[in-house]
Amino acid sequence: MIKQTELNTLSKNDKIDHFLLIRRIDLRSTKSGSDFLSTELGDKTASLNANIWEGFAELAARGKVGDVVKVEGTVEEYQGSLQIRVSSVRLATEGDGVYPRDFLPESKRNLNEMKNEFNQRIRSVSNRLLKKLLTQIFKEERFEQFCLAPAGKSWHHAYIHGLLEHTLEIIKICELMCEFHSDLNRDLLISGAMLHDIGKIEELSYDSAFDYTDKGKLVGHIVIASNLVWDEIKKIPDFPVELENNLIHLILSHQGKLEHASPVIPKTAEAIALYQADELSAKVNAYKNAVESELKADSNWTRFIPLADTDLHKFNFTDRSEEKSKKSLFD
Amino acid sequence: MIKQTELNTLSKNDKIDHFLLIRRIDLRSTKSGSDFLSTELGDKTASLNANIWEGFAELAARGKVGDVVKVEGTVEEYQGSLQIRVSSVRLATEGDGVYPRDFLPESKRNLNEMKNEFNQRIRSVSNRLLKKLLTQIFKEERFEQFCLAPAGKSWHHAYIHGLLEHTLEIIKICELMCEFHSDLNRDLLISGAMLHDIGKIEELSYDSAFDYTDKGKLVGHIVIASNLVWDEIKKIPDFPVELENNLIHLILSHQGKLEHASPVIPKTAEAIALYQADELSAKVNAYKNAVESELKADSNWTRFIPLADTDLHKFNFTDRSEEKSKKSLFD
Amino acid sequence: MIKQTELNTLSKNDKIDHFLLIRRIDLRSTKSGSDFLSTELGDKTASLNANIWEGFAELAARGKVGDVVKVEGTVEEYQGSLQIRVSSVRLATEGDGVYPRDFLPESKRNLNEMKNEFNQRIRSVSNRLLKKLLTQIFKEERFEQFCLAPAGKSWHHAYIHGLLEHTLEIIKICELMCEFHSDLNRDLLISGAMLHDIGKIEELSYDSAFDYTDKGKLVGHIVIASNLVWDEIKKIPDFPVELENNLIHLILSHQGKLEHASPVIPKTAEAIALYQADELSAKVNAYKNAVESELKADSNWTRFIPLADTDLHKFNFTDRSEEKSKKSLFD
Amino acid sequence: MIKQTELNTLSKNDKIDHFLLIRRIDLRSTKSGSDFLSTELGDKTASLNANIWEGFAELAARGKVGDVVKVEGTVEEYQGSLQIRVSSVRLATEGDGVYPRDFLPESKRNLNEMKNEFNQRIRSVSNRLLKKLLTQIFKEERFEQFCLAPAGKSWHHAYIHGLLEHTLEIIKICELMCEFHSDLNRDLLISGAMLHDIGKIEELSYDSAFDYTDKGKLVGHIVIASNLVWDEIKKIPDFPVELENNLIHLILSHQGKLEHASPVIPKTAEAIALYQADELSAKVNAYKNAVESELKADSNWTRFIPLADTDLHKFNFTDRSEEKSKKSLFD
Amino acid sequence: MIKQTELNTLSKNDKIDHFLLIRRIDLRSTKSGSDFLSTELGDKTASLNANIWEGFAELAARGKVGDVVKVEGTVEEYQGSLQIRVSSVRLATEGDGVYPRDFLPESKRNLNEMKNEFNQRIRSVSNRLLKKLLTQIFKEERFEQFCLAPAGKSWHHAYIHGLLEHTLEIIKICELMCEFHSDLNRDLLISGAMLHDIGKIEELSYDSAFDYTDKGKLVGHIVIASNLVWDEIKKIPDFPVELENNLIHLILSHQGKLEHASPVIPKTAEAIALYQADELSAKVNAYKNAVESELKADSNWTRFIPLADTDLHKFNFTDRSEEKSKKSLFD
Amino acid sequence: MIKQTELNTLSKNDKIDHFLLIRRIDLRSTKSGSDFLSTELGDKTASLNANIWEGFAELAARGKVGDVVKVEGTVEEYQGSLQIRVSSVRLATEGDGVYPRDFLPESKRNLNEMKNEFNQRIRSVSNRLLKKLLTQIFKEERFEQFCLAPAGKSWHHAYIHGLLEHTLEIIKICELMCEFHSDLNRDLLISGAMLHDIGKIEELSYDSAFDYTDKGKLVGHIVIASNLVWDEIKKIPDFPVELENNLIHLILSHQGKLEHASPVIPKTAEAIALYQADELSAKVNAYKNAVESELKADSNWTRFIPLADTDLHKFNFTDRSEEKSKKSLFD
Repeated sequence: MIKQTELNTLSKNDKIDHFLLIRRIDLRSTKSGSDFLSTELGDKTASLNANIWEGFAELAARGKVGDVVKVEGTVEEYQGSLQIRVSSVRLATEGDGVYPRDFLPESKRNLNEMKNEFNQRIRSVSNRLLKKLLTQIFKEERFEQFCLAPAGKSWHHAYIHGLLEHTLEIIKICELMCEFHSDLNRDLLISGAMLHDIGKIEELSYDSAFDYTDKGKLVGHIVIASNLVWDEIKKIPDFPVELENNLIHLILSHQGKLEHASPVIPKTAEAIALYQADELSAKVNAYKNAVESELKADSNWTRFIPLADTDLHKFNFTDRSEEKSKKSLFD
Repeated sequence: MIKQTELNTLSKNDKIDHFLLIRRIDLRSTKSGSDFLSTELGDKTASLNANIWEGFAELAARGKVGDVVKVEGTVEEYQGSLQIRVSSVRLATEGDGVYPRDFLPESKRNLNEMKNEFNQRIRSVSNRLLKKLLTQIFKEERFEQFCLAPAGKSWHHAYIHGLLEHTLEIIKICELMCEFHSDLNRDLLISGAMLHDIGKIEELSYDSAFDYTDKGKLVGHIVIASNLVWDEIKKIPDFPVELENNLIHLILSHQGKLEHASPVIPKTAEAIALYQADELSAKVNAYKNAVESELKADSNWTRFIPLADTDLHKFNFTDRSEEKSKKSLFD
Repeated sequence: MIKQTELNTLSKNDKIDHFLLIRRIDLRSTKSGSDFLSTELGDKTASLNANIWEGFAELAARGKVGDVVKVEGTVEEYQGSLQIRVSSVRLATEGDGVYPRDFLPESKRNLNEMKNEFNQRIRSVSNRLLKKLLTQIFKEERFEQFCLAPAGKSWHHAYIHGLLEHTLEIIKICELMCEFHSDLNRDLLISGAMLHDIGKIEELSYDSAFDYTDKGKLVGHIVIASNLVWDEIKKIPDFPVELENNLIHLILSHQGKLEHASPVIPKTAEAIALYQADELSAKVNAYKNAVESELKADSNWTRFIPLADTDLHKFNFTDRSEEKSKKSLFD
Repeated sequence: MIKQTELNTLSKNDKIDHFLLIRRIDLRSTKSGSDFLSTELGDKTASLNANIWEGFAELAARGKVGDVVKVEGTVEEYQGSLQIRVSSVRLATEGDGVYPRDFLPESKRNLNEMKNEFNQRIRSVSNRLLKKLLTQIFKEERFEQFCLAPAGKSWHHAYIHGLLEHTLEIIKICELMCEFHSDLNRDLLISGAMLHDIGKIEELSYDSAFDYTDKGKLVGHIVIASNLVWDEIKKIPDFPVELENNLIHLILSHQGKLEHASPVIPKTAEAIALYQADELSAKVNAYKNAVESELKADSNWTRFIPLADTDLHKFNFTDRSEEKSKKSLFD
Repeated sequence: MIKQTELNTLSKNDKIDHFLLIRRIDLRSTKSGSDFLSTELGDKTASLNANIWEGFAELAARGKVGDVVKVEGTVEEYQGSLQIRVSSVRLATEGDGVYPRDFLPESKRNLNEMKNEFNQRIRSVSNRLLKKLLTQIFKEERFEQFCLAPAGKSWHHAYIHGLLEHTLEIIKICELMCEFHSDLNRDLLISGAMLHDIGKIEELSYDSAFDYTDKGKLVGHIVIASNLVWDEIKKIPDFPVELENNLIHLILSHQGKLEHASPVIPKTAEAIALYQADELSAKVNAYKNAVESELKADSNWTRFIPLADTDLHKFNFTDRSEEKSKKSLFD
Repeated sequence: MIKQTELNTLSKNDKIDHFLLIRRIDLRSTKSGSDFLSTELGDKTASLNANIWEGFAELAARGKVGDVVKVEGTVEEYQGSLQIRVSSVRLATEGDGVYPRDFLPESKRNLNEMKNEFNQRIRSVSNRLLKKLLTQIFKEERFEQFCLAPAGKSWHHAYIHGLLEHTLEIIKICELMCEFHSDLNRDLLISGAMLHDIGKIEELSYDSAFDYTDKGKLVGHIVIASNLVWDEIKKIPDFPVELENNLIHLILSHQGKLEHASPVIPKTAEAIALYQADELSAKVNAYKNAVESELKADSNWTRFIPLADTDLHKFNFTDRSEEKSKKSLFD
């Protein structure tokens, strides 16, 4: 990993001597006819606009979204926003030892801790066949992909390791539901939770940006997952057809409604538990992130968030009460 | 096949000496406390109510929906409807050589003619890999199941051989669309048309009645089909991933809308053609059947048909004009 | 409490000498002109049909749904269902010491344990003002009502103490979400969870049956709750307006969507957490109960459940595998 | 009130020596690097763009939307629209005696006439308790707020005194419905009409622009109103609970549908009358205003109006026929 | 008109010697095998069940819904409802001078008064062409049909003269809107109000019951009306195309939404006024009637009303307070 | 017709000496204050941007969208797109003999061939009255309009002769359905297919651009068509009312759903066939065109297409496989 100050800690007039990822790149020209490169450059913590007025010939010819550049310059402010004033720029080379993925946002949770928690849950499954199936599936390269992938393009857990973090949250929520209802089939439900989104490792690309693959758009992660699980089930002799149908049902129905792209709706108690646990994990993550990152200037309200169908409010009562007399309120 | 007069040709006072399928069977008792068997019995052309007042001990104990019985009696009229007055009844035995499936409704088209038309279309596919895939899939027992199955439980083409009849209609509609648009990929579209509903051979049961299987309810014919096709594709070396994704996409998107249980919506010109061809074939068949079979007495209107969201009208202008003076009108 | 065998443990030919609640009562007459009382009678575990042919003059004149009767008779079977053959019946009197509420279904969880868990959560709130508000609200008669009420008329937690059980589940789910997201305001969220359904103590009646009150139908539990909370906030000097608005917002938005009768949709991270936790608790409870109580005879499928928009499937793989050789499967 | 020519009466080349309200203010810079202030300035009749190229240091530092400025300059035309060429500008001071609210659009109806009509309707209520309640609520500062507030942010009656104008229209429509149906409870209906939107005085801010308050977004005017009315009812001894429930029901259900943010739908004849009267008053006002103010140049059609889901047409047959020969057409 | 006591004034044991309309007629048989006629018979005020056990041969053979019978018998009570015990019955003959239409429910308003009000409004139209058009359309037999027809089959104004009563209400509401908005085109709006539902005279049949005609179901009153108006416009030379388009638009868009079967949505201020006025008149009439006629026994709530999507509440506060001490409440 | 190279065949640096249609024209000014004309100019194959910096006085004063100009200049590239560098420009004059319609896109099918196919279908109708009606309607100027008009503004068959091409496709699809179902009334169905969209000749304008007329927006092509057909039916004595109602029903219901602006939904087998045939023809045409014309650079995916609610994918497997080794794949 490269060592450089993170973008979101810089202020006006700070020096830039950074490797950064190209998130947008357009050749434009001014009314007076001179060309310039309009770009957005970032690391895993933030992105800034940068207009490049000179020395961009190589970059204009060969640079594209997802490439890494080495930039020198200064942070400056323009119309209330920070941007980069570029003094020199070049495309990164192999010798630089930097990789686009290092510039993608990633989970704040510790990866090994999450892997341990996940593997502990595989071991906790008492049904021999399900445990065998999970062990077959979550191994080697596929497990590494699963631990690397984001859970979405932009809405929730949209960062490296996000799929693992999201899956763990759902597992824990499902475990709590099994505490409430001892007649839920824990083995089935936990297995379904682990597998429900595994199709996202093929639905999404996350090498240098988060996007949908062709297969992701034409097939979708739900059917990719069901096919993967069926393939692995076929390798296990005597896997009972009822167990197979119910496990596939959990995967297919986990988005809860036909209009959310599930080809069947939940028809078992375990299926409704998985769907609602997924919703809970996803929505709270998404709203929390939006409330942090989308606030309007000098406001406790975000811009309008289409997927929430509203603007969102940040309740930060504690902070403001502290300015006056926190003691009188929280003691 | 058994030889006996078809039910829909009988009238009041005709003798009954028939094998018939049990479509409903309830043990009831009159206010005065005597038990009787209330049943609905039918062949492939019709069903009639029959109350059995005596000699039903064996039938009450062992008979169930989908069994065949031998019935003797008379056709009588009650409250404006025909029913059977039963003089004797017994469960059919092996020696009778009758099978429940012989009592299910079936397509009016000739089976061999349909099979020939279908196989001719397989041969017409010019892409070597798709032709191989189709040949692999439509063979032996699976092809026989495909030719036997209905296309639905009750709405459209809901009769033996209905799936084959429906698939052929779609193929022909798609061929017409290829005439209009030479840039549609005919091989892909025809292959998709052939495969789109093949999952129905596992989604439905049609031994003695048309119903959904457990797998049909928990998984659904769309995902069943995609898994079957993937399994067969894996047996073909070098099957191009683009072709695979696009063929699977045709299957997954053929119901056209998420709320119709397709997990992806049509995203190619071929996919929209298949969806609309399916709609056309299904809806016209369904409306035509409803207009014939659901007319209210002395009316050109049917009862309210929930799937059409209206009552339907039978336009039979020709018939009535003929009674007067057909010549003046159609000459 | 009365001591008598519970209805759901009785079989054909068992004697009945029970106090039972009238759940339906109609005076009918046979074709031959004689009158009889058609009733449904039950205790907290089950309900049975009972036709009363003699000695029902007083009951016909004065008995109504929700009254308790003393019945003597026998359990008999009719068309596959158990019913009561009544030899004598009378309305219960004060001296019998029986109360309609004793015949309503109730939570399987221990009441005192639930009360302790609930009060422990009030103590865990660190914000002084919210703790004061909760203490004011959950006390004396109102707390007893809260602990007694069902959470619904029939769909989920529809039994005595159901509101308390449901609220506790939501609290625990919200606590788990606070573990995932330390920046959620735990005090606000837990307070909202406790208060969100308190309006149900006025929306529902549950003396002798579960039903909506006039106020419940004309106003609804959401607005009843917000008014109650506002009334109690007004008694606390200097309750900050931001805290008030955000707490009321949690109550108003907890059904998540306008079409679910919330007058505002969730606009804070806490509000979305509460809504999704409520959904999770309610839906899993409802599906679990339906899967148990609505199974069709000889089937792993229930009748069609309108609120789930499907029939539901009972996955009881373990049980059946045990019959054969559980060991080979789960070891 | 300030005395100055109204903006909507000015033409190209007219002098500007006006106090105007800042409706938009952005610091921008040209490609050549010089800064300028891009603003939109207006009075109650119109708004014009004004780019300020010099002498804007104080304004850029301290001016914000909702402030009043003193501007000198000329009206000029740019790309077919009028704008202000500014020669000098300064922020208004206390000594100028001008207030932002004086620059907001206001109702064309006479305020005192509307107040008289409204008070006359309070007196016309014959039920003693309702009249007492109305008198309690519509008095002093709250009545002044009610008479000042707009009925919406932008869609209908979105101007000072708009809430009063809108409420009066609904009252008159309801009175007409009482003429048609003598069995409607006039006292209840008129009281509901008066109170239904009173929550808007807290939902909206209208000091220097029309916008939603935090409470407006988190709680909404419907629940604000119900709480206010309940508070006042509690001050009236023996207010019958049926009357209370029905009056609150009118307020809660007045938007008619759950998806319009009413937590209950209309369940009484009075409630449906109030909802439909509100729709009638609101929609006609909104369409009429849109047809006037949103016409495209040289067209009888407006731009697309999202809330109407269409572009709107101005029917001005009379005008055009008059130009030719009005007589022949209307005589 | 026949002179006989109205059905809704009769009580148990009253004599029946009435002409009544057959609203339902079924030949049934008892378990013991004897036939009887089950009928529903009514006049314009009510309908009662009547089982006829003897002397019904002619009636069973020739009687049908919509025929008038002469019945003698007594009013009796059965399971809490009144019914007719028939001693003799015969089909009415020409000589009886009774007509099915005399037994249909009709408006409570005076017909001549309504006709006068309507004609006065035609005279009030100042545009020469529109007045000519209205005069052409509302004359002779068509005007009589218009004054006779109901406005619907069952939901609102579903009684003889209902279309006229409903149209008059809308006219008056529109006139009030013109008072609020002098820039609405009164002539256009009033003409549209008069014509909007005229297609109902062909959409509905109302000779002996209210039902849809074939044309009503296949075409609908909206398009019937537009065609009728166009036909009459063609007879007026120089009718301006703009006026024609706008008047037709009022008719086509008066149901306000595509899903309510309007082929265009309102695009002018007049069109939105007409739609909302129609809604107001229709809904209040429908709810008022439902609240009166659909109340459950001993309840202030009706059964569930599908078109209102709720059960409805009757607020009759005054009545009950009067029983106690009206004075203290309303003085 | 003018003779000039088609725009879509030109490349960078090619000379322009063309008549072109103005598709957009705006007077703009640079920051430095100089005015220029920003235009979009095109022929039937493509449109290019052109900024005109000098000699545009006459054009700025009198030119408008839909006018033809004579342009000299060169093709140049700007930001990756071709545009026109204009050296001189003037409005076309009568003497130039060019007409705006010559610059509109048109069907790729041969016009006379289509006319012949259409007239052949009129002759194939065997019902004398329907054939008479069709002959009356499709003649002289109206037939020319019908053959000239596009079938839509932009979505499907949106080019000159598009309405004829679309109608022919539907006719052929309906003929195929009649092959499947001999009990469909072919005469009725083909007549309905021919007439269903004829209202588009008045709904759309297509002289110099495709747009809606006032009548198109206020009335719509469905009702325009029904009125036209009724007018012509009235000229045919003894046209049976059932035939009239069913034919009008086909026209009115051909958009299949109320929310698609059909005032009635399909209620006959013929009506559902026409609706589904229309959908099939329209959707495949629209998707095919979008897949061709809306591809993003270097992508097999289009931009997001709102009417398809997705981005669309171009499957061009053949082309790419050909580049490598077509033989191995298609032989």
